[in-house]
This record gives sequence, structure tokens and C-alpha cells, in this order.
Amino acid sequence: MKDIKFKITATDRNSRARVTQFETAHGIIETPVFMPVGTQATVKTLTPDELNEIGFKIILANTYHLYLQPGASVIERAHGIHKFMNWNGAILTDSGGFQVLSLKDLRKISKEGVQFKSFIDGSTHFFSPEVVVETQEKIGSDIAIHLDICGIYQSDWKETNRELDITLQWAKRSLLHKKREDQIMFGVVQGGFYKDLRKKAAEEISSMDFPGFTLGGLSVGEERALTEEFVDYTVQLLPDDKPRYLMGVGDPLSIIEYIKMGVDMFDCVLPTRIARNRSLFTKHGVIKITKNIYKEDFTPIEDDCSCYTCRNFTKAYLHHLFKSKEYLAGRLATIHNLFFLQKLILNIRESIKSGSFDQFYRDFKNNYSQINYE
Amino acid sequence: MKDIKFKITATDRNSRARVTQFETAHGIIETPVFMPVGTQATVKTLTPDELNEIGFKIILANTYHLYLQPGASVIERAHGIHKFMNWNGAILTDSGGFQVLSLKDLRKISKEGVQFKSFIDGSTHFFSPEVVVETQEKIGSDIAIHLDICGIYQSDWKETNRELDITLQWAKRSLLHKKREDQIMFGVVQGGFYKDLRKKAAEEISSMDFPGFTLGGLSVGEERALTEEFVDYTVQLLPDDKPRYLMGVGDPLSIIEYIKMGVDMFDCVLPTRIARNRSLFTKHGVIKITKNIYKEDFTPIEDDCSCYTCRNFTKAYLHHLFKSKEYLAGRLATIHNLFFLQKLILNIRESIKSGSFDQFYRDFKNNYSQINYE
Repeated sequence: MKDIKFKITATDRNSRARVTQFETAHGIIETPVFMPVGTQATVKTLTPDELNEIGFKIILANTYHLYLQPGASVIERAHGIHKFMNWNGAILTDSGGFQVLSLKDLRKISKEGVQFKSFIDGSTHFFSPEVVVETQEKIGSDIAIHLDICGIYQSDWKETNRELDITLQWAKRSLLHKKREDQIMFGVVQGGFYKDLRKKAAEEISSMDFPGFTLGGLSVGEERALTEEFVDYTVQLLPDDKPRYLMGVGDPLSIIEYIKMGVDMFDCVLPTRIARNRSLFTKHGVIKITKNIYKEDFTPIEDDCSCYTCRNFTKAYLHHLFKSKEYLAGRLATIHNLFFLQKLILNIRESIKSGSFDQFYRDFKNNYSQINYE
Repeated sequence: MKDIKFKITATDRNSRARVTQFETAHGIIETPVFMPVGTQATVKTLTPDELNEIGFKIILANTYHLYLQPGASVIERAHGIHKFMNWNGAILTDSGGFQVLSLKDLRKISKEGVQFKSFIDGSTHFFSPEVVVETQEKIGSDIAIHLDICGIYQSDWKETNRELDITLQWAKRSLLHKKREDQIMFGVVQGGFYKDLRKKAAEEISSMDFPGFTLGGLSVGEERALTEEFVDYTVQLLPDDKPRYLMGVGDPLSIIEYIKMGVDMFDCVLPTRIARNRSLFTKHGVIKITKNIYKEDFTPIEDDCSCYTCRNFTKAYLHHLFKSKEYLAGRLATIHNLFFLQKLILNIRESIKSGSFDQFYRDFKNNYSQINYE
């Protein structure tokens, strides 16, 4: 596959934390990076201009949702998702496999692919690895992910191994079917919660021509200690010279923890979803803005935050907007939460570059109270 | 009351259409003017910056809603509604009477005022003319409206006359109770659909010390021809040297019609509400963007529109956002509809100034098809 010119530009002495960069058709991505989720070709409530202003260079969109609405062909005829949604940064699309497989009663898996029913109109569809490659090529994202089977937490070894074998076959078929030169594809490491299977997955996927890797099948309902154990274990099985992407992680404490373990890329709906649900990030943890104590608090969410929301509005006003169920509430909260995460990521990069990540990590964890998380 | 330095800067030869201006504590207002509605101290989906960018100098907020949430005292402690919502233009607040009186089962009217129950928690409240003056002074709007009784369309002469007498008493009491020098108050002309009562109302209200007038009790469910007849009749009863404000009118054809009759100011939720409900203004009438013909229409809503939405997004993308029930949909649609109305108002002002209002009026009506209105 095309050379993405991956470079490690800084490493931490005391952990596997690192700063890297690589090229996409829509710009250079520096890592660690958090990618806001734009499921339906829009990061909920925001314009691309606002994402730019916050400083994001890459966002995520969901293949499954876009395949159903507006349809990959519509996006193709719009000359790709960037033009369609007017976003000039990079875009990563997932495979859609996770959504399709979580439909449970609405899907049927075989070695050929997954048959599923549309949640919109009940119509029947089929995702093979090839269809998923073609769909993402029509969408025109910069980074694609091949179809995989994301197992269920409690699956036994035999079932997990069987699904892993299918995933590895699908990875190969996807690479063979791929045509676009301006789109790169990441390989997915599955293997459930069995270390021997994770090892097998990492070895086989690493031997294929993928310029980056996704840690799949984690953060799927298991307890946190188990996730951490398997992220820590799996990262060490992957080559140093390619980016590592952990799906579905977006809370500040987890991000800093997994960066320490050597993860480079993250995405999650959490920051934007909790924002619309009135929860705001602060350096001391999450606050719920509808609490009575904020009714007459005429200060910004955080005094030293320079996001658009904090520069222009008070907690009292946000409290009022949420109490009144106003549209602007979720938008202003989303801006703040995404800005908070982006600033955290930038600070982490700086601390790795300046050799102070260890100190930054401890300070952040001391200040940020998970207890306040609501 | 304080001199608002009202000036007529241009008049149309063939109609009562005119361009005027007057001063408020937050800037000079040029008319004709359309005021977007920010019921709960926010024009739904938009920031004050976006309203500024579109070119609005004045918006409306609702006393009744703000009285209940967050409460006038909270806004007072925020140093007024401008600081509270971060809007530096002018703000007009209605009296809250219309909302309170439309509660029907939840209110009781006497000469003293209106007792009503909160739709939020069922608690009992009382609006006297004095309470309404104080509430608006705490809110700190630039233009206040006194409490009035907006009658029901079918009320008989006797009932309408009785309610008019109460309204006239309330107008006097409001003027007596008023304290703030930086807030002006408009008098309301009631009188239902009886010309003798409209005449009595206009004469009595004109004799009081109000710097502007509101045409009340119109567009309340009666047929359009009757509204037009009574606007036309009532405007002629009012002095030329003060602004005339018609509440609750916001569709382009009505606006241009009433400007021709001599109305200066308008407000209405229509442009923003239909926007969130997928209807977009164009020079040919309203289009419903969810129609199938727009699915792959990769052009802006209007080719020659320079609003933020048209500069950045296509009909196909808006179609997709509405189909996907995305938050951004209503916001982008709201920007376009408000921009359309603001542009219409500016063009009308220019045409009056240049002596071509008559031509503009005919061209606009020929192009704009009410049939397309959905």
C-alpha cells in the first residue's frame, strides 16, 4: 500500500507514549489524536468551520449509516464525503461491521459476509469484505477499515478463534479488492480476551500490507481492568513503525492511560453525547450544568478555557439553555467538550516532546476526579 | 418618555411604505425591520454572532417565558438580558399577555391583572400591568410592551369594548409605573374587529406618552382578508411620526403587503420554525428540502444567495441532514431563512429610497408563489 511516511517524532522515556505523524490524502495527522465522531457526515450540532476552529485535522464517519442514508452512490456523485459535508480535513471511516453485528436479531454471519436488515425500512442488505471496500471507496474517506467480526465479550476460545480466522480472511480479501490509491486501509486486530488469539491476530495482521492497525473487540462491555490489560498486551505485539488506533475510547482518563500504553489514535461519541446530555468536561472532572448551583453562576465553564463557549457565555446561561431544552445548549456544550479534549491531546503531545509526560500524567490524574463523572 | 429621535428618511409615492429610523439604548433601528424571535433569550439554534453576521440589529424575547425560566431576577443579576445572552444589538420584549391569555383554562382576568398557572410546575402567578413593567425592567430590554388583553376573534362588541377599556387603563398604569430611562415602551392598539373600537383605541393610545405603537389582536385566527382590512384601517389612525409594529407576521408576502400599508416592524417565529421543519424560502416560494428531487441536487438552495448555508452546503447535503434528523439541519435552514428575510427587508428599504418600491413589490409578488408554501 501507499507509503504514509510514518514518523515517530518523540517518545517518552518512562512509558510507550509517543508523538508520531503520517500522511493522508487530506493532510498530515499528528498523533496522539482524538477524532470526533461524525456518524452521518456531520459531527452532531457543529459545522466543519467550528471543528477547524477547535483544531481538529481528522474526524470519523460511519460506513454503515452512510451506506443506508444517503447511500454511498449519492456521496460518490457529490465527489466524495469531503465535498459532500464541506470538510477539508482527513476522514476515517469504520467498516460498519460493528453496527451490523450489534443488530443481533437482524443479521446473519457467514464466511462470505454479513446479511442484515436496515433499521430504517427493514430492507435486506449484504456486507461482504468486498462490498465494504467498495462502499468506503465510493464514500472517499482517507482511512478505511476492513470488515471484521467484533466478537461478544463472553465468547469461548473456539468461537473466538473461528471468528478471528474469518476476520483474517476478510482482511486479505479486502486488501486484494482495494483499488483507490488515495485511500489507505488499517488492519483490525481481533482475538477477544484470549492472549494466544490476540498474539495470532497481531502476527497475522502485521504480516499483511497494512500501514496502520486498529485494536478491535475491546471496550465492548467488559470491565475496565480487562480492557486495560488487553490494550497493554496487544499494543506490545504490534510493530513500532505503524500507527495504532483504539476504537470507542473518549473519556479523558482512559485516553491518557492508553496513550501511556502506546496507543496513537482514538474516537468516541462520548464527549459529544454527554455534552448534549448536559455534562461538561473540566480539569477537575465532569460537571452537570443543570445543577442548581450553576443557576446564577455568571462565570465561564472554566476560567482559563479559551473555547468559543467559554469566551462568550456563562454557566448561568448554559444552565438556562439546558433547563429550557434549547437547541443552542447542546451545540455550546459540544464545542466546549471537544475543545477540552483537543487541548488535553495537545498538552499530552507537548509533554511527550518536552520529556515531562510522566509529570503531566500524574498531575492530570490528581486533578481529574472520576467521581464527578455523571 | 425619552425622545427616540424618530425620523422618516424615505417615503413611497404610491403607498404608505416608508423608511424610518429611531434610537434605542442598543443602537439605531432602521425600518422596515424584521425581528427574529428569541423566545427564551436565544434565537433557536443560532448564536448571537450568527445573527450579527446575517445583519440583524434587533431581536425579540418573550417576557412570559423569561419570567418563568430563568426568572427576571436571574437576568437582572446577570446585568440584563444583553449580557446574559451575549447579544449587543437591541431587544424588544413583548408583555407576556398574549401567552398568559392563551392559557385559557389556566388563567383568570380581572381589572387588576391576570392570574395564571405556570406550564412548567403548575404554580400560581399574577401579572398586573405593574408586574409586567417591573419584569421587563429587570430583563432590561430596549423596547417594552405594556400588558394588554388580546381578545378572541369572535368576541362581541360589548366584550371587546370592555376588554379595550381595561387595556387602556393598563396602558396608563404602565406609563405611571415605568422607571428605567434606557427602556422605551410601545402602546398597544386593541379593539378587535370593530372599526369604531379600533378608532377609539388608536385615539386614546396616541394621546398617551408612547414613542411607538403595536397593532395588537390581529393575525389571531381570522381570515387573511380581514387581517389586511384591519391593518390597513388601523395604520391610518396612527400618527405618522412614530413607529408601527405588527406582531406575529413573518411570511414574505405578508411582510411586503403590510409594509405597503405603512407598517414598520415585524416579528414572527415562522421563518425559524418552518426552517426546523424543513421548509426553505426561495424567491419562487417555499421549498420542502426533504423532497426526493433534492437528494442528488448538488447546488445551493439559491444560486445567488450569499448566506453561510448557501456558500458552504448543497441541497443534497441539507436533504441528507433532514432525512437523518441531524441537529445541524435546523441550524443551517434557520440561517438561510433569516438571511432571506433580512435580504428582502434590505431590498425593500433600498427600493423605497430609490423610488422603485412599486416595481419591486410587483416583481416579488410575481416571482413568489404562495402555492409552493408548505
